[in-house]
Amino acid sequence: MNIKVLILAGGDSSRFWPLEDKHSLKFLDKYLGYYCLGSLAKFGLTDVFIVVNKKNKTIFEGIKRNLNNLNISLVEQTDPRGMAGAIISCANYIKGSPFVVVGPSDIYEEILVANFVDLLKTNPDGVLTGITVDSYFPGGYLSVSKDLVTRIVEKPSPTELPSNIVSFVFHYFKNADLMLSAIERVKSNKDNVYEKAIELLISTGVKFKYLPYTGYWGYLKYPWQVLNVSSYFLKKIKGHKIKSNLISKSASLVGDIWIDEDVKILEGARIIGPAFIGKGTVIGQNSLIRESMIGRNCVIGFNCEIARSYIGDNCWFHMNFIGDSIVSGNVSLGAGAIFTNFRLDERGITSTISGNKSETGRAKLGAIVGPDVRIGANSTVMPGVKIGKNSIIGAGVLLDTDLEDNKFCVLGSRKYIVKNNKLAISNSFRAKAVSKL
Amino acid sequence: MNIKVLILAGGDSSRFWPLEDKHSLKFLDKYLGYYCLGSLAKFGLTDVFIVVNKKNKTIFEGIKRNLNNLNISLVEQTDPRGMAGAIISCANYIKGSPFVVVGPSDIYEEILVANFVDLLKTNPDGVLTGITVDSYFPGGYLSVSKDLVTRIVEKPSPTELPSNIVSFVFHYFKNADLMLSAIERVKSNKDNVYEKAIELLISTGVKFKYLPYTGYWGYLKYPWQVLNVSSYFLKKIKGHKIKSNLISKSASLVGDIWIDEDVKILEGARIIGPAFIGKGTVIGQNSLIRESMIGRNCVIGFNCEIARSYIGDNCWFHMNFIGDSIVSGNVSLGAGAIFTNFRLDERGITSTISGNKSETGRAKLGAIVGPDVRIGANSTVMPGVKIGKNSIIGAGVLLDTDLEDNKFCVLGSRKYIVKNNKLAISNSFRAKAVSKL
Amino acid sequence: MNIKVLILAGGDSSRFWPLEDKHSLKFLDKYLGYYCLGSLAKFGLTDVFIVVNKKNKTIFEGIKRNLNNLNISLVEQTDPRGMAGAIISCANYIKGSPFVVVGPSDIYEEILVANFVDLLKTNPDGVLTGITVDSYFPGGYLSVSKDLVTRIVEKPSPTELPSNIVSFVFHYFKNADLMLSAIERVKSNKDNVYEKAIELLISTGVKFKYLPYTGYWGYLKYPWQVLNVSSYFLKKIKGHKIKSNLISKSASLVGDIWIDEDVKILEGARIIGPAFIGKGTVIGQNSLIRESMIGRNCVIGFNCEIARSYIGDNCWFHMNFIGDSIVSGNVSLGAGAIFTNFRLDERGITSTISGNKSETGRAKLGAIVGPDVRIGANSTVMPGVKIGKNSIIGAGVLLDTDLEDNKFCVLGSRKYIVKNNKLAISNSFRAKAVSKL
Repeated sequence: MNIKVLILAGGDSSRFWPLEDKHSLKFLDKYLGYYCLGSLAKFGLTDVFIVVNKKNKTIFEGIKRNLNNLNISLVEQTDPRGMAGAIISCANYIKGSPFVVVGPSDIYEEILVANFVDLLKTNPDGVLTGITVDSYFPGGYLSVSKDLVTRIVEKPSPTELPSNIVSFVFHYFKNADLMLSAIERVKSNKDNVYEKAIELLISTGVKFKYLPYTGYWGYLKYPWQVLNVSSYFLKKIKGHKIKSNLISKSASLVGDIWIDEDVKILEGARIIGPAFIGKGTVIGQNSLIRESMIGRNCVIGFNCEIARSYIGDNCWFHMNFIGDSIVSGNVSLGAGAIFTNFRLDERGITSTISGNKSETGRAKLGAIVGPDVRIGANSTVMPGVKIGKNSIIGAGVLLDTDLEDNKFCVLGSRKYIVKNNKLAISNSFRAKAVSKL
Repeated sequence: MNIKVLILAGGDSSRFWPLEDKHSLKFLDKYLGYYCLGSLAKFGLTDVFIVVNKKNKTIFEGIKRNLNNLNISLVEQTDPRGMAGAIISCANYIKGSPFVVVGPSDIYEEILVANFVDLLKTNPDGVLTGITVDSYFPGGYLSVSKDLVTRIVEKPSPTELPSNIVSFVFHYFKNADLMLSAIERVKSNKDNVYEKAIELLISTGVKFKYLPYTGYWGYLKYPWQVLNVSSYFLKKIKGHKIKSNLISKSASLVGDIWIDEDVKILEGARIIGPAFIGKGTVIGQNSLIRESMIGRNCVIGFNCEIARSYIGDNCWFHMNFIGDSIVSGNVSLGAGAIFTNFRLDERGITSTISGNKSETGRAKLGAIVGPDVRIGANSTVMPGVKIGKNSIIGAGVLLDTDLEDNKFCVLGSRKYIVKNNKLAISNSFRAKAVSKL
Repeated sequence: MNIKVLILAGGDSSRFWPLEDKHSLKFLDKYLGYYCLGSLAKFGLTDVFIVVNKKNKTIFEGIKRNLNNLNISLVEQTDPRGMAGAIISCANYIKGSPFVVVGPSDIYEEILVANFVDLLKTNPDGVLTGITVDSYFPGGYLSVSKDLVTRIVEKPSPTELPSNIVSFVFHYFKNADLMLSAIERVKSNKDNVYEKAIELLISTGVKFKYLPYTGYWGYLKYPWQVLNVSSYFLKKIKGHKIKSNLISKSASLVGDIWIDEDVKILEGARIIGPAFIGKGTVIGQNSLIRESMIGRNCVIGFNCEIARSYIGDNCWFHMNFIGDSIVSGNVSLGAGAIFTNFRLDERGITSTISGNKSETGRAKLGAIVGPDVRIGANSTVMPGVKIGKNSIIGAGVLLDTDLEDNKFCVLGSRKYIVKNNKLAISNSFRAKAVSKL
């Protein structure tokens, strides 16, 4: 097919802090880009332009080198106007061609691409994909009449929703020139130029077919959403896929588990699936890994519990509890450090986004940790707390608010030292106790 | 037998704080009331009046419903004068009948009831039970001559004890009207009307036979005494009584152990008897339970150690140490919370009762926790500390004094946050260390 | 042989604080004195004078009683002038005899004594042993020409080293009277009288043969050096040397391991060699011991990890991490106490010696703990911190500086208690969670 595909990966991801860009995350040891590009290639969409940003450019360069079956170009965004600006930045490449826009935040199943490509065979003017939602979602909404989209509205207020169909940005435009020109005609200061341009096309008679999508929809705008996506990928594992022979006989593996090459699982460790353990990682004695995805070359030392968490590459733990947490690459925890995941008052976990407390919608949520972080022994991180990259948390700290990038947080410990004139330490009791054992 | 039995369960139990009334505690999954009433029924004492209080009324209502072989009436105490008042509150029921008074704080063996009923066959005017003690006990004391009681004194001073026989409140009065009338004639502001009335009867020629009791005597006045009683019941378990088939093969069970229905014991967990695990409870991976009684529907998560403790229903633990502690129902602990049980200076554990430090007589004693309590991660509770119901202890707190009911205790953490301009975090050392593993 | 041996064990060991004198340490359950005296006896050096100090006198008295094959005399140092003074203190015993001086801080292999005795067969005036070093060492240095020592300089500045040969104090003097008289003639206020006296002898024509030593050299001046020496002794263990039959079948022993009599190893415990476990010690359920030497009658309770550490007799641990640490006898740790061993910033560990921060040369180093110490639950000791004897550290303390002898360090915890008017604690969420498990 002579269709150009625009993958919009250039956007700002400030709401994703302290995690880097979503394209820097690996799931089942592969960057998201591989999943997206793989499904496009499978259905013949091989002419791809990826609008990148500074954080993910290197990653996409690597992907480009590895995927020879696609014709990939990386584009830097030159026009700041959101999705519309991204399209304009690709104007020279798409002029005169049909093109597809693939949105910045979505994870979906391959059936979407299959159905999309099928629909293209009917030679439509355009295609807009949508997904029916049960509750309010802060995105674009579609009004649909028969098989055509009649309206698209970006972020309507929750009380004025035109429908329960959210626009899923997997959109097709047969005539790039019409869309490029429509974008230039829209006057708007808001982040809705793209949608306004589509409405302009509709008003001038362009027919957008509606493609309903009913499969899995993973959405990565807020960092805690990584847990949902991680869970989605973990569920793809079926049975045992064990590529290492360094697993102790006294270790136990229960459920669907993928253990990659050179993984060591030491004595008494227990892995409860679905779980993924990346290449070269060590799972220490007696540790328990439950429903988690763990990256490469990690050392999960003695007596850790990691439950329902996403752990990046090169992490180093030791006698820790990490529950419902997201940990970037190159993060170390001292012995006894704990990521709590549940409020004592049993309320839902909130997280601060742009200075405001937001509901995460999760009853359990632990810490969210950026890359290159060190966390001291016997420290405690409260539910939903975020820690910026290259920061250090000292031993014994109770961290109950977010910590910015590049900070050092140390305990202002108060302790008193007095003369021990009260007792000479004996070992009488202990001796008795030993004799009882 | 046409004998009425009065069970005095209506008293104030303020010294038992933070635990609720002793009748709200279950041992081997049964309230104490069942043990008491069961032994009475077995020996034909089926006409029972229970003087209840607000805390245990509901519990006794439930017991009444379940025990059809007894004729149970619940009575609310209308006269405030301690045991004497409780008897007066039952005056209408016992008039013209012989009656038995069963005391408020004692746990005893069935042989007592057997011997008591045997003695009644001699048709005595009355029977007073006593127990010989080695050291001072703050109760009533009996003077005995041949087989008759000659005197009863409530709480004599330790230097003026009339004997070493403590009155064990399992008492018989053939003529209720005489006792009721004696109570009304006693003038006393102290809590000794009951004993004074008996002395009055003795002085008028009523012959009280003395029944010596030599079996187990469990006494529940102070909350730490629950540990002794729990230990007594645990010793009744003989061998393995396993009612669940959800026990991992890698779990180990050593000693006398009763595991109730639907209990899950996960991999690597170890139970060292005597131990009781209540219906529906989960014992997590690698956890160690030693000589403890654990209620229903608890989750004892990964890597806990519970030693010589009493745990109520619906508790939730996780990576905790709980030693020599008493935990009421619906109590949760965050990961890393520890109940210490031994003083660094190896002294006996004291506890504050009515504002005064009291010796508990225990070398090891952990926390005593009322119902509906939440305790945060990495917190530490010092030996003998008591925590009132519906209270919350924040993460990281070191709790070294009692906490009242309905309180929230949060860490006033001092920490300093500075710029981390000293180092960019590398992973060189760690990489080397991994290669060594 | 009619040669007197002077073992100089009388020196001050203030830099070794908080550990007692090095001769109070046992390796593989034997005091260092046994290793030294054993090798002397084996090669016929049986006439021994040990210059002792107050701390090690009792220990040497015990050794003397146990070693009947040697003729041992204990000598108290009467002349304060370091090594020279120690020799003078033995003047009456060595007059008219050849004698050997064995230094105060060295651990060496038997081959040294063998070679030394061989060299004596050539009837030299004297012998000075030396060892070639790669980097600066603060000791005496030898200049050598052919097989003779031409100079000895005590602690030259690092920029003026006469050679890379450090004097290893295993020295022989054929004529004691000459050496005694040389010492008396030296005028020096510094701690170099011994070396000056040797130089005086050389200048008057005494020929000191040079004996190069190339084997293991263990040096115990600073306390962290115990880890190296412990490691040296552990490497002598070959295969399994198991003297106890109280080892659980579910325990695992990997590598070279010596387990002494009456040791109990409980279920799920793991010992990774090289490791030594002293007589009567208990290793608790699920604990992990790696490359460590553990003394007698210790209780290493549930879930401890002890890695690359030296542990004295009668210690008591419980749910602790102890990494790269040195713990004297009779030390207890509360549950959750952690000895950290690695800096978050990955720098080398420093330690304060005489008020100055000294590099220890170790990337990993935990705590160094004197005898008779108690350390509370959930406390954290930072890398390289030293704790003096008979001191107590309260629960929850973060100890980041050395603590002197006989101190009590308590947490100045700040916490706030408010009314819990926000919530009545429910168990709804928990109930749901349980049903999922």
